[in-house]
Amino acid sequence: MTARPRGSLVIVGTGPGAPDLMTPATTRAIARATDLVGYGPYLDRIPPGQGDQTRHASDNRVELDRARLALDLAAQGRDVAVVSGGDPGVFAMAAAVFEAIEKGDPCWASLDIRVEPGVTAMLAAAAAVGAPLGGDFCAISLSDNLKSWTTIERRLVAAAEGDFVIALYNPASRARPHQLGEALRVLSARKPLSTPVLFVRAAGTPDCRVIEATLGNVDPGKADMRTLVIVGASTTRRVGRWIYTPRREGERTSASQRKASSGLLTT
Amino acid sequence: MTARPRGSLVIVGTGPGAPDLMTPATTRAIARATDLVGYGPYLDRIPPGQGDQTRHASDNRVELDRARLALDLAAQGRDVAVVSGGDPGVFAMAAAVFEAIEKGDPCWASLDIRVEPGVTAMLAAAAAVGAPLGGDFCAISLSDNLKSWTTIERRLVAAAEGDFVIALYNPASRARPHQLGEALRVLSARKPLSTPVLFVRAAGTPDCRVIEATLGNVDPGKADMRTLVIVGASTTRRVGRWIYTPRREGERTSASQRKASSGLLTT
Repeated sequence: MTARPRGSLVIVGTGPGAPDLMTPATTRAIARATDLVGYGPYLDRIPPGQGDQTRHASDNRVELDRARLALDLAAQGRDVAVVSGGDPGVFAMAAAVFEAIEKGDPCWASLDIRVEPGVTAMLAAAAAVGAPLGGDFCAISLSDNLKSWTTIERRLVAAAEGDFVIALYNPASRARPHQLGEALRVLSARKPLSTPVLFVRAAGTPDCRVIEATLGNVDPGKADMRTLVIVGASTTRRVGRWIYTPRREGERTSASQRKASSGLLTT
Repeated sequence: MTARPRGSLVIVGTGPGAPDLMTPATTRAIARATDLVGYGPYLDRIPPGQGDQTRHASDNRVELDRARLALDLAAQGRDVAVVSGGDPGVFAMAAAVFEAIEKGDPCWASLDIRVEPGVTAMLAAAAAVGAPLGGDFCAISLSDNLKSWTTIERRLVAAAEGDFVIALYNPASRARPHQLGEALRVLSARKPLSTPVLFVRAAGTPDCRVIEATLGNVDPGKADMRTLVIVGASTTRRVGRWIYTPRREGERTSASQRKASSGLLTT
């Protein structure tokens, strides 16, 4: 029988970027850690801690190595915080840590491990434009590093068939310039071309920038790694300067609202 | 031409319950308000503000009236905070406010309105059990006050066909005791009976309690209004004390893991 290791590991998310969107629970968990492990730019969001806090910054594409390093440090008795952006459980480090435990040293499974929830990008993106996630919605990562395009396409088709509002994470990167265009084509074949499409870049930061379009006129080239894309449901619509999805179904957009709306769309 | 009203309205969420899961941005927005409008129990989470802050508490089932009151106060020049639980944009007050604007006084559309994102219940529920939302996921409210059961069923079928992890909000209430059982039957007909089902009650509070089951043995009667239900994707699995969905697809659970898992399930 192995003795329970003394260290601990907490997996946190810094939220979408602005310090005032990081929860106090996360701030406290980071302050208590002896070691911070994370992708460099996320660690840079953390103000300097106690003098003896060690930072282990790494590249963005080595999540599993980073998780193993964190588990190893915790098993040595350190109090480790793994730092993600957003919410650590949504397309971020929490799943990577549990994957590393499953494949790794069996003693890691008895470590004191905790996940702290945070504000994930789609919530900040939605808040920036109104309330587009006001109805049922789904979140799909377009990164095909870890899953096949066939799976992504199957989920896009299902999301269209269910008339969900759709949040697309990781819409584009230098290594994957064509995914978003393909995804929007899959959706365009199944949803009205008048469906609102929102590109929200750097949501939850002072640099936040929104591009509004429709499935019929959207330019996928305008998204980058920092963009969160929201594609509306059939009821998603404009009111004043905002886009929202009513809680109630079956409320149609009136002709005058459609006219006001189309005049305001920009790409 | 109407002059732009001087008041303001911010729509905030207190997070899942514990004060340290409310963002500093939300705390500040509430402190600045002259008037707080919200469902009584959410207002009770807010510590007393300045001496002249007025609280307008209301019943939970009158979202649209509450939104109209808030807009009316803002149009009179007050600085109003509409207080939801969780994230205000997810099955909460933000959509109700935009719905009230669409149907109401045209001058409301020119008010200074802002939405502050927050931690929604499914993120806290996921964090409490590991990382079940580590893959693509969707969120469905089972309340049929505002949409038909046909629509809910269509979305459950699509979610199963897309092999999404599924977060079910509003799974049960005294007025709707049978929805969750029906929803789980729809999913059971389309997903393996070994699929993990998690009931997380009062996530993100000190009273948090988790019931783990599978689609084959789940008892829907154990959910109440404060429960968030998570139904796994085909890859969602147990490791140690945690449940997670790998980021990578096509990684099968080994026979020994399935055995260890089934021994730990409780209903």
